[in-house]
Amino acid sequence: MTKKAVLLLSGGLDSTTTLAMAKSQGFEVYAMSFVYGQRHSHEIEASRKIAQKYGAKEHRVVTIDLGAFGGSALTEEGLAVPKDRSDAQMGTGIPITYVPARNTIFLSYALAWAEVLGAYDIFIGVNALDYSGYPDCRPEFIGAFESMANLATAYGVAGGKRIMIHTPLIDLTKAQIIRTGLSLEVDYGDTTSCYDPTPEGKACGHCDACQLRLKGFRENAMPDPVGYA
Amino acid sequence: MTKKAVLLLSGGLDSTTTLAMAKSQGFEVYAMSFVYGQRHSHEIEASRKIAQKYGAKEHRVVTIDLGAFGGSALTEEGLAVPKDRSDAQMGTGIPITYVPARNTIFLSYALAWAEVLGAYDIFIGVNALDYSGYPDCRPEFIGAFESMANLATAYGVAGGKRIMIHTPLIDLTKAQIIRTGLSLEVDYGDTTSCYDPTPEGKACGHCDACQLRLKGFRENAMPDPVGYA
Repeated sequence: MTKKAVLLLSGGLDSTTTLAMAKSQGFEVYAMSFVYGQRHSHEIEASRKIAQKYGAKEHRVVTIDLGAFGGSALTEEGLAVPKDRSDAQMGTGIPITYVPARNTIFLSYALAWAEVLGAYDIFIGVNALDYSGYPDCRPEFIGAFESMANLATAYGVAGGKRIMIHTPLIDLTKAQIIRTGLSLEVDYGDTTSCYDPTPEGKACGHCDACQLRLKGFRENAMPDPVGYA
Repeated sequence: MTKKAVLLLSGGLDSTTTLAMAKSQGFEVYAMSFVYGQRHSHEIEASRKIAQKYGAKEHRVVTIDLGAFGGSALTEEGLAVPKDRSDAQMGTGIPITYVPARNTIFLSYALAWAEVLGAYDIFIGVNALDYSGYPDCRPEFIGAFESMANLATAYGVAGGKRIMIHTPLIDLTKAQIIRTGLSLEVDYGDTTSCYDPTPEGKACGHCDACQLRLKGFRENAMPDPVGYA
């Protein structure tokens, strides 16, 4: 019997690779994306295309009101996305692009859908190496969410099978993620990672996300197939 | 200095009592309510009135897409709200009015707002006695959420002060909750608990929520000031 899994899909390099990995492990994937007051909607368009191309059984786009809380450069107009930061700068502190409790909210929706579907597996493409500044990308957060999820739901009462949060990228470098995806025939030209793209959807090449991505391709000695401004 | 707290406010008897308790403990209360595909909007109107009357500093109403997941009598048109169940029936199993991962999603939004406000305290009026069938009303769930919350956020990285999830009603009977609220001058005529009210907002008197509430007033030898159909 095919196992169902709910997968958080942003349309970026990491979540697209995670989708390809979940499929290669034999999961029937239910992909979930969020519109949350980010400045650009091209991510959603990318995620729709990716869900279809990489064989998600179903794709749901959930609109959430995260922007109303403010406090992040990704959701507030007034805050600028930092550009051309050094590795050392990226490695320290919590970046201004951190969105309060974002992964907690995303995983909570995934949990609700999993419970309705009767799925026990949730995939999220978090990475502890590149995003060391984001508290909700750390393995200890994921472990705590998994424990909570098993108490939060009807599963927790019934006992038996447990919900599992899969984070197949958590210890990989960006270069390793790209190699994994390429081995699974991911076309990274489909993906979008930039925090601050042009209105036409071209990546800026200078934000943390673009820099990490470009470095990953450089380390694989190949060009990034995505278009830069 | 006044301590800020985020409080989940449904407009029902429990959350209104919780609001009065948080205020009496000296918290500056930021109340948060949710529109989530439940069949009736009179709960939101009640919560607006209650937030103002009982002195919330601010009140936000967040629309969420929980209904899209289905699976509960409170969010799906096709499922009937159970009526006139015995105490024994109410005490066993997970009721059909359970909404998948609801409190997890609500608390995740509260956590996001708390982080933006710089608040360390979150109040939720869950009750383990009357709602023993709801997995996400149990103390072990609340404890697990609190642990997760402290790892999910910037707080968790900074260390020091910890986020606390307050559940002042968790061990109280409905009769004790009502006595507590009355001592804090709560007018329960403002509150609404019914799962299946008339279009005019009158309580049905027969669903689990109405039955528990009526029993609580009976045990205090007083009439429920709310209007029944």
